[in-house]
Amino acid sequence: MTFKKIVLIMAMHSEADPIRDALELEEMDKLHPSLPMDSYKGKIGQTELLLLVNGVDPRFQVDSIGTQPATLATFAAIQAWQPDLILNAGTCGAFKSKGAEIAKVYWGNKVIHHDRRISIPGFREYGVGDYPVFTDQALAQKLEMEFATISSGNSLDMCDTDYQILDQEERVVKEMEAAGIAYVAELMQVPYLGIKSVTDLVDGGMLAQDEFLLHLKNSSLALQQKVLALLQEISIK
Amino acid sequence: MTFKKIVLIMAMHSEADPIRDALELEEMDKLHPSLPMDSYKGKIGQTELLLLVNGVDPRFQVDSIGTQPATLATFAAIQAWQPDLILNAGTCGAFKSKGAEIAKVYWGNKVIHHDRRISIPGFREYGVGDYPVFTDQALAQKLEMEFATISSGNSLDMCDTDYQILDQEERVVKEMEAAGIAYVAELMQVPYLGIKSVTDLVDGGMLAQDEFLLHLKNSSLALQQKVLALLQEISIK
Repeated sequence: MTFKKIVLIMAMHSEADPIRDALELEEMDKLHPSLPMDSYKGKIGQTELLLLVNGVDPRFQVDSIGTQPATLATFAAIQAWQPDLILNAGTCGAFKSKGAEIAKVYWGNKVIHHDRRISIPGFREYGVGDYPVFTDQALAQKLEMEFATISSGNSLDMCDTDYQILDQEERVVKEMEAAGIAYVAELMQVPYLGIKSVTDLVDGGMLAQDEFLLHLKNSSLALQQKVLALLQEISIK
Repeated sequence: MTFKKIVLIMAMHSEADPIRDALELEEMDKLHPSLPMDSYKGKIGQTELLLLVNGVDPRFQVDSIGTQPATLATFAAIQAWQPDLILNAGTCGAFKSKGAEIAKVYWGNKVIHHDRRISIPGFREYGVGDYPVFTDQALAQKLEMEFATISSGNSLDMCDTDYQILDQEERVVKEMEAAGIAYVAELMQVPYLGIKSVTDLVDGGMLAQDEFLLHLKNSSLALQQKVLALLQEISIK
């Protein structure tokens, strides 16, 4: 399956810059003068590619990570550009006990939250989310990517309650944006495809923040390779 | 201080409907056909009032609570209507040990997150947020509202880690939207004013969900009275 106009949403410049450089994307005006998101554009064959990086928070001067800027970026991007695919690529934590390794890249076949616990009938499932995702089994095999459940939360660490929820069999990948992006993509009826590269093993014994910073570069390079290969496959020749 | 165009953002219809009815607000077209938010308009003196209720999630058929829809609603509202004040009113949990009672209404003089733990230098403060808020000491006194710190998180319950963070002296009010709204208001340079009415005492011994449902109506009525009184004071005669 191919797409005419793909918006690639990424949270951090350290994740996005290798992809921007490899594809020689051109910087555009900001989507909105008051939003921190940075925009770039290019072409892959006949397909238009727009890269949106969530950008640097104007007050804190750090990358705008988490589901709030991800929600904002996705809505602004769909409104402005009307893509036929939202591609979300980023780094993540993952469970060694469930097969994860540093710089392994997963394709999300399920996107849920682990920090929206709402024990009121009806709201419980809303809190989990379980947003629609675009998957292609044959393409995942060709690109040597495994499917995995992506679970989003707004903390880099895992408290005991997070761990109990995440340790459930199906949750392999832990990161901070996918569910925000997939939520808006569903509302706006644009397919969502998420791929995540492992920077830290959440059950590996190291502090998430230390392991994250240690492996960010390698993990971002592995992500870059898979994103470029994937874009080749889903763009129009 | 008075405002020309106020956008009132509320998460749940059960909180918003008494206010909508009391002010005889008129239903408008949706802000965006794909978004669940419901829009209403009216006048208070010479001030234009626009009420945005986060609306019913199309898949789960429950009110769109939490910071993601709050983020989305605030951006869409500011973009469409360009208000000079974002007023956010809603129900909340609060600490009995810090003076809270059911149906007491607080005015937020600080808005922070309690579920964005990011232990990387620079990101830590970003995770807490501490967004700018509009306050008026004399007006709060006149309306018999106390100032309090509002802390937002995407879970209705409190896990042990949440409790440890929330139990810190300054955090009185616990709710699920303020920080999402105040985040966007800051980016878009619109003043944020938040008032919250207590539905459950987080250290009162009852389950949050049971107490929330038990006191939602009373708490919403108390909220309505304060919102109407506040709007009278900040609108143009």
